[in-house]
Amino acid sequence: MIVAGKHYRTVWLEGSTVRMVNQPLIPYRFEIIALPTHRHTAEAITTMVVRGAGAIGAAAGYGMAQVALEAPEGREFSAYIAEGAERLRHTRPTAHDLFYAIDRVLQAIMGATSVEAARRAAVEAAERLADENAAAGKAIGEHGAALIPDGARILTHCNAGWLAFVDWGSALAPIYMAHRQGKRVFVYVDETRPRGQGARLTAWELGGEGVPYAVIADNAAGYLMRRGEIDLVIVGADRVAANGDIANKIGTYEKAACAFLNGVPFYVAFPSSTFDPKCPSGEAIPIEERDAEEVHYVIGQDEEGALRRVRVTPQGAQARNPAFDVTPAEYIKAFITERGLCAPQEVSRFLA
Amino acid sequence: MIVAGKHYRTVWLEGSTVRMVNQPLIPYRFEIIALPTHRHTAEAITTMVVRGAGAIGAAAGYGMAQVALEAPEGREFSAYIAEGAERLRHTRPTAHDLFYAIDRVLQAIMGATSVEAARRAAVEAAERLADENAAAGKAIGEHGAALIPDGARILTHCNAGWLAFVDWGSALAPIYMAHRQGKRVFVYVDETRPRGQGARLTAWELGGEGVPYAVIADNAAGYLMRRGEIDLVIVGADRVAANGDIANKIGTYEKAACAFLNGVPFYVAFPSSTFDPKCPSGEAIPIEERDAEEVHYVIGQDEEGALRRVRVTPQGAQARNPAFDVTPAEYIKAFITERGLCAPQEVSRFLA
Repeated sequence: MIVAGKHYRTVWLEGSTVRMVNQPLIPYRFEIIALPTHRHTAEAITTMVVRGAGAIGAAAGYGMAQVALEAPEGREFSAYIAEGAERLRHTRPTAHDLFYAIDRVLQAIMGATSVEAARRAAVEAAERLADENAAAGKAIGEHGAALIPDGARILTHCNAGWLAFVDWGSALAPIYMAHRQGKRVFVYVDETRPRGQGARLTAWELGGEGVPYAVIADNAAGYLMRRGEIDLVIVGADRVAANGDIANKIGTYEKAACAFLNGVPFYVAFPSSTFDPKCPSGEAIPIEERDAEEVHYVIGQDEEGALRRVRVTPQGAQARNPAFDVTPAEYIKAFITERGLCAPQEVSRFLA
Repeated sequence: MIVAGKHYRTVWLEGSTVRMVNQPLIPYRFEIIALPTHRHTAEAITTMVVRGAGAIGAAAGYGMAQVALEAPEGREFSAYIAEGAERLRHTRPTAHDLFYAIDRVLQAIMGATSVEAARRAAVEAAERLADENAAAGKAIGEHGAALIPDGARILTHCNAGWLAFVDWGSALAPIYMAHRQGKRVFVYVDETRPRGQGARLTAWELGGEGVPYAVIADNAAGYLMRRGEIDLVIVGADRVAANGDIANKIGTYEKAACAFLNGVPFYVAFPSSTFDPKCPSGEAIPIEERDAEEVHYVIGQDEEGALRRVRVTPQGAQARNPAFDVTPAEYIKAFITERGLCAPQEVSRFLA
């Protein structure tokens, strides 16, 4: 998408260097970071310089391409590839796109008959993954925009916009598309504690595109639904099980529960690479518990414009920090994918 | 309750000066603020130096006593009283205890036959209100502790502890009582954005009493309920309608909705002064929309220990900030009052 007149993707490869938008600095500063080796790329995924299922997937794909470019020729080549894949695989436990991307590039490497061909195949596979993700975002936008009536007031949680993908986004793609089609839309943006991706990233994206919105505390969405002030909910997904359960940012389940009780349609938008047909149900999805520090501290901009973290709990306080939750299929009206809509109960048929 | 070995109430009267715990500084600093006139007291209520239904009620009662102490003798006495009552009445729109306290002290003033007697009656009525509130907290603790099994994992939202009352608390009183009875309890404390009363105040209170707890992002409570990690929920209330609907801190509704869907008992604890039998249902309760700045900024302690606010949304972002929501009676298992338990469907019978 466009930043200050120039088109950017969230992550790309130049030679053997991965470059990505430094997302923890958004909305305060727009900066591109350079990652010379796959170890740097893995570290950037772990520390959430890049976040969002699609962007993580693309970053992991490029990271695997870096592994192939770095691997020594000869007998150690395969071991280096395997070790690099393991390293990238352990950066984040929940994101299915991460595993999908690593496997796709691994397969391309395995299919090659020489080290040179393996390197070329790895880079090509990683580029193809990124291109597919960008194209999927646009197609999700087209399919999803048809569900958004003129004048719609839409709730979204976390950031499933272009920053979470290579380009365009998933949950926000239908909103961008509807807005460009001339429909009037208004977006309620959940702050999304503990990391505030809604308040920081989604608000920044919507502002850039000129879509009217209001940030709300995560606690306020149910209130607005109960008062009839939200017409539909669109969120993203990090993983979709065969039975239609989804894993997404912590708090998604609460919004879905409130939507269910208030008859508000709840849509989940994602590229079909997020489907994990081998995962039978939400109960089989491991949930990442992140560092309690994310609960104890809030990062924001101080009066002088510097990024600063402040402590919001007492010294010595205990905290728990599950980063994702599972929303059962029964609370979801439809999935919006680049291949069209899908009822959560019909995942197997849709994938067949 | 005890702070550093000394017993404090949250608010009290010394001569004609109201003193109160400066709650925005908790948990970083413990400081008592002095309010020489009812205008200072009204300002302290509006700016939430004091917060929580019971503490606001007691502060408003003492504020009315100040009005009586300040009022000029002679023809202007009644007008001053009326004007002071109006000023206090407009400090916060949702808290029923506020109106109740003002009316109780007003009645005491009206019943007196001289200015001197009116002043004495006002101070006595205000003191009685505070004493009743403290005694109610303890009785709520006794009735509520019977509902808490040994080993219970309890969720609470916002701060309905002793800081929200004159002493002891409402939602936390049963937890303190169960803990003192030797039961093992563990408390999940919702952060309670936008103002973070859970992370700041409830965590500080529980730490002081030695009750084990973990702060969680507001988004995480539903996840824990769905996983069976929460045995019961106890929250406070700012106002209880005749049909059993309650108004409480924004986010209470979402927790109740999740508890309802997961079969987790949801209790609401409050002194019976919080009942508003003239209010037919939750729909009749006005909901305060507070300044959007509370959403844009988070206040916490920086690395040097200073209180500092940081901006968590982009410059120019829009926000909405409803401060309370309504939880319908059907999601509530029981009310815990100083007079015992009450089913939400039986408010009229209970009050009769």
